[in-house]
Amino acid sequence: MEVDIGNALAEAADPGVDRSALEELDERVAAAHERIERGRADGEFGYAALNLPERTDPDAIREAVAPVADAETVLTVGIGGSALGARTITTALGPDAGANHLVLDNVDPEHVRRVLDDVDLGSAAVNVVSRSGTTAETLANFLVVREAMEEAGVDWSERTVVTTGESGPLAELATERDLPRLAVPEGVPGRFSALSSVGLVPAAILGIDLDGLLAGAREAADGLAPSLFDCPGYAYGATAVALEDRGATINAFMPYSERLEPFAEWFAQLWAESLGKDGRGQTPARALGATDQHSQLQLYRAGRADKLVTFLRPRERPEQRVPDVEHDDLAYLAGTDLGELLDTELRATEASLAEAGRPSVRVEVDALDARGLGELLYGMEAACVLAGELTDVETFTQPAVEWGKAAARDALAGESTERTRTLEEKSELHVD
Amino acid sequence: MEVDIGNALAEAADPGVDRSALEELDERVAAAHERIERGRADGEFGYAALNLPERTDPDAIREAVAPVADAETVLTVGIGGSALGARTITTALGPDAGANHLVLDNVDPEHVRRVLDDVDLGSAAVNVVSRSGTTAETLANFLVVREAMEEAGVDWSERTVVTTGESGPLAELATERDLPRLAVPEGVPGRFSALSSVGLVPAAILGIDLDGLLAGAREAADGLAPSLFDCPGYAYGATAVALEDRGATINAFMPYSERLEPFAEWFAQLWAESLGKDGRGQTPARALGATDQHSQLQLYRAGRADKLVTFLRPRERPEQRVPDVEHDDLAYLAGTDLGELLDTELRATEASLAEAGRPSVRVEVDALDARGLGELLYGMEAACVLAGELTDVETFTQPAVEWGKAAARDALAGESTERTRTLEEKSELHVD
Repeated sequence: MEVDIGNALAEAADPGVDRSALEELDERVAAAHERIERGRADGEFGYAALNLPERTDPDAIREAVAPVADAETVLTVGIGGSALGARTITTALGPDAGANHLVLDNVDPEHVRRVLDDVDLGSAAVNVVSRSGTTAETLANFLVVREAMEEAGVDWSERTVVTTGESGPLAELATERDLPRLAVPEGVPGRFSALSSVGLVPAAILGIDLDGLLAGAREAADGLAPSLFDCPGYAYGATAVALEDRGATINAFMPYSERLEPFAEWFAQLWAESLGKDGRGQTPARALGATDQHSQLQLYRAGRADKLVTFLRPRERPEQRVPDVEHDDLAYLAGTDLGELLDTELRATEASLAEAGRPSVRVEVDALDARGLGELLYGMEAACVLAGELTDVETFTQPAVEWGKAAARDALAGESTERTRTLEEKSELHVD
Repeated sequence: MEVDIGNALAEAADPGVDRSALEELDERVAAAHERIERGRADGEFGYAALNLPERTDPDAIREAVAPVADAETVLTVGIGGSALGARTITTALGPDAGANHLVLDNVDPEHVRRVLDDVDLGSAAVNVVSRSGTTAETLANFLVVREAMEEAGVDWSERTVVTTGESGPLAELATERDLPRLAVPEGVPGRFSALSSVGLVPAAILGIDLDGLLAGAREAADGLAPSLFDCPGYAYGATAVALEDRGATINAFMPYSERLEPFAEWFAQLWAESLGKDGRGQTPARALGATDQHSQLQLYRAGRADKLVTFLRPRERPEQRVPDVEHDDLAYLAGTDLGELLDTELRATEASLAEAGRPSVRVEVDALDARGLGELLYGMEAACVLAGELTDVETFTQPAVEWGKAAARDALAGESTERTRTLEEKSELHVD
C-alpha cells in the first residue's frame, strides 16, 4: 500500500496541511504509535484488533466450515460489522465478484422474501453472525431463514455455521444442535473484525485465499512505525485528522474499482463509528470512480470547501481494448483500453480538484489480490486507530447507538418506558 | 407524498428552524414558486423538467422499444443522469427488483467483462444513453459491447435502442443503422430526466407501469403551490435550505427500503450537481435503514452537529411474520413482523436523534408502487429546484465537471495542453 498526500499539502490545497505542521504532528504520531503498540502488546480492548493477522488461524476456519464447504452460495445473516467485512472480502476477491455471497443485513420483508425465493436453500451455506446472539435484525432474519429451510424440507442444522460470543442464544443453539461454531475474537469490535472468523467464513467457503489475505495484513502490521512518513496507514490517518482540523469535515471515499465498492462501505462504518463522537469526526461519503464524477464531482470541486477526497486504486487492471471507431468526435478513444481510460479519469479528477485547491489523497495497492486487500484492510484500520488517538476519542466503543436499540426493543415488547414516550411525543409538522 | 418536518424545528433540534423563521422563509418560497411556474410556462432550460409528467408520451416509448420488447434483460450503457434514473425506477418497481436490468455505468475493464460474460447478448436489449453521443465512458463501453455482440454472432443493430440528442455520433449511428431511437428531451438536464425516455426505456421493456408513474408525478406537479405549508416537495426543499443555513451542511439520505437504495443515489446526484456550487450546497451522504444504524448512527447522533437526516419510508410493506422462539433474551420478538421491526427501528432512530437534538425530516409515500415512486421523483425534483432558487445558484448547470472531462480527453489524445501539464505537475508526497 502506498499513500500519496501531495495534494493534501497547503502548497496544493485549502484546506491543506503545511509540511512544517506535518512534522509537528509527527511527534504526536510517534506518541500515538507507542500507545498503540502498548495496547497491542497487552491485548487491550480494541487495540487487540491490530493483532488479528497473527492471531487468526485460517486452518481452524477452514476446518470449522468443512461440513458446508460444498456450498456454491453463502447466505450471511448479520448486520453492520458482522456483515460488511465479509461482503467486502468476497466482492473484492470472490469468484464472480461475490455474486454467490448473499447477505441479509436488513429486515426489509420484501427483500428477505426475494432472497429466500431466489437461493437454493438445500445447497447454500447459512452463515449467522452476532457477537451477542441477540441482535434484533439478525435473530429475526435467522428465524425466518430457518423456517424457510424447514418448509423447503432442508435440515437447517446441517447447513448452518454460527459465529458468536461465548454465551447468548446463538451460542446455546450451536451447542444444542451441534452446529459448526466459530468464536468472535475477544477484544475486537465488530467493525475491526474483518480479518477474523467474522469476516472470513464466507471467504473460506468460497475458496478465497485466506493465507494471502492474512499475509498482506501481516506485512502492513510489520510496517507500523513511529512516523507518518514511514507508514502509509499512519500517513493516511494523520493527514485525515490534520485536514479535518482545518475544515475538511467530510471524507469522500472514492475507489476506482467496482470490486472495491463494498470496501467504501466498510470504510464508512470504520470511520463513522470509531471517530464520530464528542461532536467531531469526519462524515464518510461513499463514492465510486469514475461513475460518481458524473454525480458528485461538481459538488466536490465547486461546493463547500469541507471535503477530503480519498482516491483508491489498484495499479493492475486486466486488459480490455476499446475497439476503433471512425468518427472525429471519438478519435481520442482510438487505441485506448478501458483500464487506461479509468486511470486517466482518476488522474484528471485529482488534477481537477487540485486546480480548484481542493485536497485529495491517493491510496494505491499493486493489485487487488488477497495480499493487496489484506494490506488495505489493515492499513485503513491502523489509520483509524491512529486518528482516534490523535483526536482523543474512545475509538472502540459506539455508545450513541444504544439509546435507539433499547427504544426499539421496548416498543416491540409493548412496554411503556421513558424511551417509548419519546417515540410517542415526537414533534410533528406534516405537509401533504 | 407526505413530509413531516417536526423534528427539524428549533423546538426539537439544533440546528433547527424556528416556526417564525419558516413563516418568513415562506414569503421567499412564494416568490420562488412564481419564478418556477414562469420557467415552466415558458419551457425554460431546466424548469422544463418539471413539465415532463405532461410532456412524456409513454405510448411513444413503448412503440419505439417494441422491436426489443421480447427481451428479459436490459443492458443500459450510460453514466450519471443517463443511468441513475433508469436504475432507480427498475429497482423500485421492476420484476425481481431490477435484477434483470444491468447497467454499465463505469469503465472498470473487469466489471465490464464480467457483465458481458454473464448476460445472454442474443436475447438482451441494449439501451445506450448519451445526450451528446460523445460521453467517453458510455461510448467506450458501447464499442466494447458492440464488439462482444458481433463476436457472439448477434446482430447488435437488431437489439440496440438509442436515446440521444439531435446530433452527434450516436444520432448518426442510429440513422445509419436504422436503430430505434428516442430523443433526450430539450431543456432537461440529465439528472432531471428520469421521467423522460432517458429514465423510462428499461422500464418500458420490462413492463413497468409507465402510466402510473407519470400519473403519480402529475399529481405531485398539480400539487405545487406557493407555500411550503401546502406542498410537500417545497416543504422538504425549504427545510433543507433553512437547515443548511444553520449548519446542516450534510444531508444523510436514508430510505428504509431495499428497493429505494438506488433512489438515494439518484437523489445524491440531483442534490450534489444542482446545489453544489458557489461554495455551498449540502453534501448528500447515502445511507440505508435499518442497516446503517449499525454503521452511521453513532456519527449522526454524537459526531458533528452538521447533518440533516432524511428518512424515507413506504407505509405499506408485505407481511413476513417472525417465527416464535423460546428464549428470554428474544421474547420481545415474539409475534412481530419484519416490516413492523423495520418501521419500529425507523421510529426509534428518529427519536434517538431528536433526543440528542439532531434534526431529521421524514418523507413518506403510501406505497412503493408506480404512483408513489412518480410522486417521490417529482417531489424531490421540485424540492431541488426550489432549493436552487432559495440559494440563488444556477441549479441546472454543472460547469465544474468540464475541466476534468477536457483534461482526460486531452491526455487520452496524447496532447500537451495546460490541463495535461497540471496532471503531470502534480504535487507529490509518497509514503509506502
